[in-house]
Amino acid sequence: MAEKPKLHYPNGRGRMETVRWVLAAAGVEFDEEFLETKEQLQKLQDGNHLLFQQVPMVEIDGMKLVQTRSILHYIADRHHLFGKDLKERTLIDMYVEGTLDLLELIIMHPFLKPDDQQKEVVNMAQKAIIRYFPVFEKVLREHGQRFLVGNQLSLADIILLQTILALEEKIPNILSSFPHLQAHLCKCSFNL
Amino acid sequence: MAEKPKLHYPNGRGRMETVRWVLAAAGVEFDEEFLETKEQLQKLQDGNHLLFQQVPMVEIDGMKLVQTRSILHYIADRHHLFGKDLKERTLIDMYVEGTLDLLELIIMHPFLKPDDQQKEVVNMAQKAIIRYFPVFEKVLREHGQRFLVGNQLSLADIILLQTILALEEKIPNILSSFPHLQAHLCKCSFNL
Repeated sequence: MAEKPKLHYPNGRGRMETVRWVLAAAGVEFDEEFLETKEQLQKLQDGNHLLFQQVPMVEIDGMKLVQTRSILHYIADRHHLFGKDLKERTLIDMYVEGTLDLLELIIMHPFLKPDDQQKEVVNMAQKAIIRYFPVFEKVLREHGQRFLVGNQLSLADIILLQTILALEEKIPNILSSFPHLQAHLCKCSFNL
Repeated sequence: MAEKPKLHYPNGRGRMETVRWVLAAAGVEFDEEFLETKEQLQKLQDGNHLLFQQVPMVEIDGMKLVQTRSILHYIADRHHLFGKDLKERTLIDMYVEGTLDLLELIIMHPFLKPDDQQKEVVNMAQKAIIRYFPVFEKVLREHGQRFLVGNQLSLADIILLQTILALEEKIPNILSSFPHLQAHLCKCSFNL
């Protein structure tokens, strides 16, 4: 049996949280090495364990993967979370990229000045409600498939689920006008 | 014969330039529809031609692709620019993601305040020289293959080439300490 993947990142959500979600959805157990001090990061850098001197880094299948998207893509490829053909893969990729743009606002939120944080919540809510959620609501309403792309759980479902739950922490009623997304959220949670 | 791809974006480099480079490298002719006015963008949005209401958008193979990375990935998949197996693909993806982080600084540069632009050139130069170029210099020096990953041109070579040339416009001698990158630049230019 292959060794469990090992995740290197501070003990917080940040850019690693999506990786944790996708591994969990794929049913892959993993270990975490939390970086608590600058010295720990320095040690990884000095040992040439971080290709571009940054975390997240994931040790998996004999490789040391970096760059959030590259890590996600690899796990999705290995665990059949990227559709059945190039057309499905491309749809999944577009949905993922849109959702990651929204998630990026959430990831950066704690680093804003306190005065800007409340304003940014309004911005996030608007982006979600006007730009992103209507796309996914329409897809789910119209295509009659079980998941965002086809009848199988994909990277797109998982990252959307993570993003919606993170947004709901700040804006509890954010899905109130999106009944198909609400139902999808339940279905995906149940499938994980 | 399939119709030529059509690119929808303002008449500037921005986020579309990488798509132009990759299509050119793949030997694919394309048309451009330059967005000169807000009304043209509005028309695309109103007609539901932009999944997330944003450009870049590329009409290709009957699809309307959005999100820069998704467009790049699709073209790379269609034109064998993503390696021969998942391991090569993942290396290419990591190199691409690192290079896109650097390229993002160049894309955002014109939007900085004039006072910040000169400082940011210094930051870019440092990032390139300390974080990114040493990685690619080492790969090229040590692995003895013709391109960054294996013996075939990939998405990683193309985006690195574009990024280096864009940086050289601002910092002409940026490659002076990287002889293998200099040679690689010549080789890739020759192969396009």
